[in-house]
Order: sequence, then structure tokens, then C-alpha cells
Amino acid sequence: MQLLDGRAVSDQIKKEIAGEVLRIREAGGKIPHLAAVLVGHDGGSETYVRSKVRTCEELGFKSSLIRYEEDVTEEELLACVDRLNKEADIDGFIVQLPLPKHISEQKIIESIDYRKDVDGFHPINVGRMSIGLPCFVSATPAGILELFRRYGIETRGKHCVVLGRSNIVGKPVAMLMMQKSEPGNSTVTVCHSYSANLKEICLSADIIIVALGVPEFLKADMVKEGAVVVDVGTTRTPGKTRNGSKLTGDVKFDEVSPKCSYITPVPGGVGPMTIVSLMRNTLLAGKKSIYE
Amino acid sequence: MQLLDGRAVSDQIKKEIAGEVLRIREAGGKIPHLAAVLVGHDGGSETYVRSKVRTCEELGFKSSLIRYEEDVTEEELLACVDRLNKEADIDGFIVQLPLPKHISEQKIIESIDYRKDVDGFHPINVGRMSIGLPCFVSATPAGILELFRRYGIETRGKHCVVLGRSNIVGKPVAMLMMQKSEPGNSTVTVCHSYSANLKEICLSADIIIVALGVPEFLKADMVKEGAVVVDVGTTRTPGKTRNGSKLTGDVKFDEVSPKCSYITPVPGGVGPMTIVSLMRNTLLAGKKSIYE
Repeated sequence: MQLLDGRAVSDQIKKEIAGEVLRIREAGGKIPHLAAVLVGHDGGSETYVRSKVRTCEELGFKSSLIRYEEDVTEEELLACVDRLNKEADIDGFIVQLPLPKHISEQKIIESIDYRKDVDGFHPINVGRMSIGLPCFVSATPAGILELFRRYGIETRGKHCVVLGRSNIVGKPVAMLMMQKSEPGNSTVTVCHSYSANLKEICLSADIIIVALGVPEFLKADMVKEGAVVVDVGTTRTPGKTRNGSKLTGDVKFDEVSPKCSYITPVPGGVGPMTIVSLMRNTLLAGKKSIYE
Repeated sequence: MQLLDGRAVSDQIKKEIAGEVLRIREAGGKIPHLAAVLVGHDGGSETYVRSKVRTCEELGFKSSLIRYEEDVTEEELLACVDRLNKEADIDGFIVQLPLPKHISEQKIIESIDYRKDVDGFHPINVGRMSIGLPCFVSATPAGILELFRRYGIETRGKHCVVLGRSNIVGKPVAMLMMQKSEPGNSTVTVCHSYSANLKEICLSADIIIVALGVPEFLKADMVKEGAVVVDVGTTRTPGKTRNGSKLTGDVKFDEVSPKCSYITPVPGGVGPMTIVSLMRNTLLAGKKSIYE
């Protein structure tokens, strides 16, 4: 069993990106600039946004953080998105989800200029990904494929089972894995709450990507010997850490890992790859590599 | 075994649409207007476009046919799309594919105003479908789901195997079948040229949708007793018909059909449903039901 070490790989990619930013700087080019919009004070969101801003600094990006209180109106937030769309120095920006219930997340997402949508959530980017055109691929699916690429994991003709059909992970990672590209070219099965024979389906999988948000859902008796397992789950449960909680994945790691050829740990697997993929999208936005 | 009679169902839907157009006419409303752009003289394309125009007439729609010779430039075609985008009376239009090799189909598709893209090929419509938002769903996938709806075929929790990953059928029908809606909520597997164990996967399917364009690919020994089989294939092969050719599907109908609970014939299955779905999109466009 080999760990898919998202921390180590993301460190390597960060070095590569930082090097490129340095070259851009030396050539007098445009320094990538990421803006993040954070509404309210949700602990998880605070942590994610802080980590994104810190990574920007590490890489030599410019970053801007725009904060709103929980009671910001949808109108105010739309006006903010409009300003960021127009602000020439900002190459890409994200609105951290989830948003308060009185604001339509979908409306906010669709108001973002797709050329600055480095989260890859805008319908144009989702559609272009599905068709197989250049686009901003959302960060978690992109990070998973990058792990496969860096570890040289063969995906062509393999049976990849995706557990979960969210718009942010399940559906896009399934789309990527079935594309005519490498990584990709997998036979892809998408399972969800209505799926029957889940155990049987998982047992037929060469690659399992679990994105359910159900702690320790995937057990050893659902995994074939030699399978590749990717754990996207991050549920915060009480535990002995600095802040009194720990991250638990969707995979029962201790019993599943001995059967795997490769497996991602939680934390230190998909998480760091997600942030670095957002940074890569921002770099591409700054270079206008995808859209003019 | 029961036939999924696309001809009969589409006749019924045509009656419903014609009735609605009549009511619109009586109320002095906007008569739906579909335009079709046809380049060159390919036999198949001529047949499809003729059939679309004829169906418009049957339903009381307005229709316009714009023809170009094979040597039309991409620039001329883009100018035509631009005119149709701006022409207020035209609610929706299609550019019949395939186009000559010197023209980028993708560029043409992306130049169509997504609010008039009744073929549902524009990235915005593809992305919105994937996310589960209101949109123009491309005609063949929409027609297949409508068949399931009209015949009351249960799809929830069923294993649906899609053979083929084209942008026009395989990928979108897979997306629709996995959505949190009915028809939908299926466990979906997408197979293609690199898929291993195809026979085994097909044998586990409750529903098989074949969209490979390989005549009589699906044999009886690949189908479980009681399965639902949808045949999207239409290959023109020499045969004893009016014009000396006949349509052959991707399913070896004579040996597969006795094992099925439901199966679409070719012709008379998915084909008529496709045209009627395009008409339904045009009606929705005329009513501004999806986009303002």
C-alpha cells in the first residue's frame, strides 16, 4: 500500500507555481491576483479562506479578502461580484460557500464572470468541462486527477466508482474520469443514496472516489484487493487536536488501507490538492491561458 | 416484451404541442418560430432538416430554412448565426451538423445565443443540465427520458448502463439519468471503447442505452432477462426500401428483444422522440419558459 501524499505533491506543485510567478515578476509580467469573498464567521469557511490567502502569499500571488457580515443582502453581494468582475487587476475570485440561506448561491455563482471563475462552478465552465473544452476545472476534481497524474496511476479502461453526485465533486470528477484523455478513459459508475448493490459495485471497482460526507462509510469488505481509494470526505468530529476536533474521512482507513494499492489519507490527501488546484487556476487566469 | 413506440408517443406529444400552439394563436400570442441552417447537400442532413421543417408545419410553428453551399466560409456562417441571434421573431434555431471540415463546429455552437440554442449544445445549456438547472436539454437525451416518463418506467435506484460517451447522447443522457429527479436517480455507468468487461457490465444493467453507432453491437448474451433497452443507433445500410437503404440500430433486435421488458425499435423509437423534443424546446423558447 502506498499513500497518495497530497501534502507532498501539493508542496511540489507550489514550488513549481512559485517559480513561475518569480519568472513572471522578473519579466515584468502580471502577478496573479486572487480575491476571496467571505460572508459571516463560519469556522470551516474561515479556515478555508485563511488557508487560501496564506497559500497566495507563499506563492507570491496578490490576494484580497473581502468580508461581509451574515446579514449582507443578496443585492450587496451581487454588487460586490460585479465590482470584482470589472476590477482589471483581479484575475480570479471565489465566493466562499456556503452562503446564508437568504442568498441564492446559484444566482451568485452565475453572476461571476466565467473568465474569473477559478472555482469552476459557473455553468459555462461546467459545460465546457463536460464537452472536453479548455476551462477552469473545479478544484477538488482537478486535484484528484493531478494526484493520479503525479503518481502515474493508470486510469484507462479501469472501472472507477464515484460515491456521491454533488455538483462540486461527484458529478465533475465522474465527467473527468470518463473523458477521452489521460487521466481519464475510465469506465465510470456514479452511485448515490438510491443506489442498490453498493457493496457489489464497489467490489468491482479498480478506483473508488468517495465523496459522501459520511464518516468511515467505505469499509474493507467493499474494497477489492489492489484498488485505488480516494477519500474526499472531511467531517469534523470531536478529537484530541489543537482545537478539540479532528477531520474524519469517508473511508475507514485502518481496515481499508491494507487492501489498497494506493490510498489518500485524511487529512493530507485531497485537501491540500484542492487548494493548490485553485492556485493553479488563478495562475492560468493571470496568464490568460484559458480565456482571453 | 413491450415496444417503446417512439412514433406513437411522439404523435401524442405533437397533438399536445399543436393544441398549445392553437391556444397561443387564439390568444394572439407569439407563434413559435424555428430556424434551421443547412450547409451543403449531405443526404442524411437533408432528410433530418426536411423532417424538422415538416414537423414545424404540422404543429403550426413558423419555420425558416437557410441554406448555404458546401464552400461557405466560417465567417459567413458566424454572420448568419449573429443575424439569427438578433432576429426577434426567431425563438430558436439549429445549425445542422456535421459541418464541412473547414468550419469549426464548436465555434459555431458557442456563437449561438444560449437562449435560442434549442439543440442544447451550447456549454451554458450543457453545464446547467449537469448542475440540474432549467435549460434546453439536447433532443435525443430528452426524448429518451420522455419515453421513460410516458411508459412509467421506473428508473430510481436502477442500474443504467450507457454505451458511448458522445457529447450529443452518451454524456448528457448519463448526466440526466443520475440527476436527483424522476426519471433519473439511477446508478449510472458510462462505457466506451476502452471499457473492459463490457459484457459483464451490461449483464448487470436494468436499463441499457446504446449510442455507439455500431450496427447490432448489443447481442442477447449481453442482456439480462427483463432489462429495458434503448437503441440510439441509426446506421444506414443497404436494404430493400424506397431509397435502397435501411436504418440499422446498435441492438441485434431479433435476438435481444425477447429478453427485454421494454425495447425501442429502429426506426420508430428514439428518432421520432428526438424531433419532437426539439419542437418542445422551440415551444419553450417561444414562451420564454426557460430564459427571459
